Amino acid sequence: MPHRMKAAIIAIGSEMLGPTRVDTNSLKLTAALENYGVAVVRKSVVGDSLQDLVGEMEFSLGKADILIVTGGLGPTEDDMTREALSKAFGLEMDLDQSIVDRLQARFAARGWKMPEVNKRQAYVFRGQTTLTNERGTAPGFHLVVGGKHVWVFPGVPNELEWMIETYFKPWLEQTGGKKRHRRVLKIAGMTESGVEERLKPYYDAHKGELLTILAAPGGLELHLLRDTADEVASRERELLDLFGNRVFGFDDETLEFVVGSLLANRGETLATAESCTGGLLGSRITDVPGSSRYYVGGGVCYTATTKTDIAGVDPQLIQQHGEVSQEVAEALASGIRERFHTTYGVGITGIAGPTGGSEAKPVGTVHIAVADATRVEHRKIVWPFTRTLVKWFSSQAALDQLRLFILGRGASRS
Amino acid sequence: MPHRMKAAIIAIGSEMLGPTRVDTNSLKLTAALENYGVAVVRKSVVGDSLQDLVGEMEFSLGKADILIVTGGLGPTEDDMTREALSKAFGLEMDLDQSIVDRLQARFAARGWKMPEVNKRQAYVFRGQTTLTNERGTAPGFHLVVGGKHVWVFPGVPNELEWMIETYFKPWLEQTGGKKRHRRVLKIAGMTESGVEERLKPYYDAHKGELLTILAAPGGLELHLLRDTADEVASRERELLDLFGNRVFGFDDETLEFVVGSLLANRGETLATAESCTGGLLGSRITDVPGSSRYYVGGGVCYTATTKTDIAGVDPQLIQQHGEVSQEVAEALASGIRERFHTTYGVGITGIAGPTGGSEAKPVGTVHIAVADATRVEHRKIVWPFTRTLVKWFSSQAALDQLRLFILGRGASRS
Repeated sequence: MPHRMKAAIIAIGSEMLGPTRVDTNSLKLTAALENYGVAVVRKSVVGDSLQDLVGEMEFSLGKADILIVTGGLGPTEDDMTREALSKAFGLEMDLDQSIVDRLQARFAARGWKMPEVNKRQAYVFRGQTTLTNERGTAPGFHLVVGGKHVWVFPGVPNELEWMIETYFKPWLEQTGGKKRHRRVLKIAGMTESGVEERLKPYYDAHKGELLTILAAPGGLELHLLRDTADEVASRERELLDLFGNRVFGFDDETLEFVVGSLLANRGETLATAESCTGGLLGSRITDVPGSSRYYVGGGVCYTATTKTDIAGVDPQLIQQHGEVSQEVAEALASGIRERFHTTYGVGITGIAGPTGGSEAKPVGTVHIAVADATRVEHRKIVWPFTRTLVKWFSSQAALDQLRLFILGRGASRS
Repeated sequence: MPHRMKAAIIAIGSEMLGPTRVDTNSLKLTAALENYGVAVVRKSVVGDSLQDLVGEMEFSLGKADILIVTGGLGPTEDDMTREALSKAFGLEMDLDQSIVDRLQARFAARGWKMPEVNKRQAYVFRGQTTLTNERGTAPGFHLVVGGKHVWVFPGVPNELEWMIETYFKPWLEQTGGKKRHRRVLKIAGMTESGVEERLKPYYDAHKGELLTILAAPGGLELHLLRDTADEVASRERELLDLFGNRVFGFDDETLEFVVGSLLANRGETLATAESCTGGLLGSRITDVPGSSRYYVGGGVCYTATTKTDIAGVDPQLIQQHGEVSQEVAEALASGIRERFHTTYGVGITGIAGPTGGSEAKPVGTVHIAVADATRVEHRKIVWPFTRTLVKWFSSQAALDQLRLFILGRGASRS
């Protein structure tokens, strides 16, 4: 690939044009293309109309070096991708008996007879490359049209994924596509403008270089994409110097995974007592396989009674300070820890809204406490969000507070 | 609108072409268009290149009666939607001083001075309609080009939503767009093929009529879209006759909302004791505003100790039958109910995986029990899913089991 190649993506299918479906196939293709330095310049979704398909294919190929088409390869009359390709690019089709045999065997293996209509899927383009589909019935194609490349894949997500890995990525690599290196640094507890501010010296040192900042729910991601692994590693070190332990993880790591790994590695344990998050913190912790090694559970303490009965919060404390208070958050954290003899306890209490707020304690007020045997750490936050977001951000803040609390203890003492 | 009008949608912005962002704006536009009988025939995403934008606009308008463009209306050099429209459709632009004044006032209200660059947003198309934006700085446009309609909206979701409600829907209605009527019936506890099977008499009675079946996480949706409210109501009655109380709700109602409404209306209360779902059930219940009226909380009982300490499960029962068993699920439900004196208790215990399974109790095995003062109802399910899906489907099954349990009790006794 002498210059930076351009790609266009077409997703085919009237069902993709309704008010409920988004095209996620193009994201997988885009990630593969980006890894080899190919830029996606346009993507489109069109319905099952032969004329529209032909027009779209011609128009899209005019804008790009690589055209990728997904969907419309099924056996029914609605599936017109083959016909459209043939018409748009003047290609002739032949019946491939080996595909008919494969399809018949596939049906026979399930005790069925192949419907006659499936024969449509056995037509291939003369002189072009057919991509056998080991995950389904529709083969894909790699066509060369006027020196440009057209890749045609089934729209079924797991079939497409398999074809990307099996055919598309190896081709991108072979074609001289420079494999680029990606690293994602994940940051919690900072605003986007705070991150921008702290990035200034990095921007100054690397003018014109792309560093993508992506807002993720309850955190931010820094996306590095460079030509060599060494470059990525050196940039990563600079970013870690700037952000320190604000970086909680890398690539696909979630905050609950990072906290879980810390606990597992240190042989320590955790209990939780949640009020306004209603169990969300426990649910996130237990999304991680193997969490039963360090998480014992705890209480969803949605009333004063459950706070007292499950986490042992003194009723007088609740009466004196209210259920939403520093004192009760700390008592929840310490109480649940003591009750279940864990290394750490986390307590959360707050007002998720939309009602229940007051001038002194507005909606969004959340108290989070983390305790071990010798220390309790408290934080109060007032989120400017609606109910489910208050819950989510509170669970995120609690996990991050726990992470920093654990790191602050230094090496494991157990 | 004499014939069925066609619409095309273009989303503008290079950031929309990366591997992490999907275009959800087009879904809101599509829903509005569908309600007035306008079909979306294509949608596309293009980057911030003037030439690409111009080509895309010309091509798209050729395919439709209504072209909708979102994004690229910001104040920076990257925002080229205005220039592209002007070039594509031969329109002239003028500075609108009233917009400059509005922008300056908007900035002044925050104590800021308007950056000079924002003046770009005050250029409007001569002889065309400018859409004042009360949610942001970028105005939108309604242009008439060769008898066709071009609508231009900002890409910021809440600004777009406001403009759809304020300008676009009223126009669709005025233009003679027939307001269509929509109703969504939500079904739990059935497979898609089970739903298809039961729909046969309905299909036979309404040949050629569209009824969309949509798979939602842990449920299915039947989407009715008809020309009159009467038609929708009569189809709805037929579907309710077929599906009975398998229909748990309508339109935007979630299962946790429906269960919550049942409890609130009956003045009844609920406690939960969750093992494998780790708090997810409690979190979903507390996603509903006002859930503190009927939900007291309960336990995340991830170990044998927490099952005994929080929900009062007899340790001998655990020893005898194992933590994942009918007996323990029932004891969790009854125990947590008794402890917190609620009308109902729900207990869940299972193996979310990926490890921890055995031949007798494979990964995905989940026991769910619902109890009131006189009765305990148990269900065992073996989900063929991965960890987080096992959790989700278990919480969904527990909510639905609770719903049917409550309905089975008849009128409230409290």
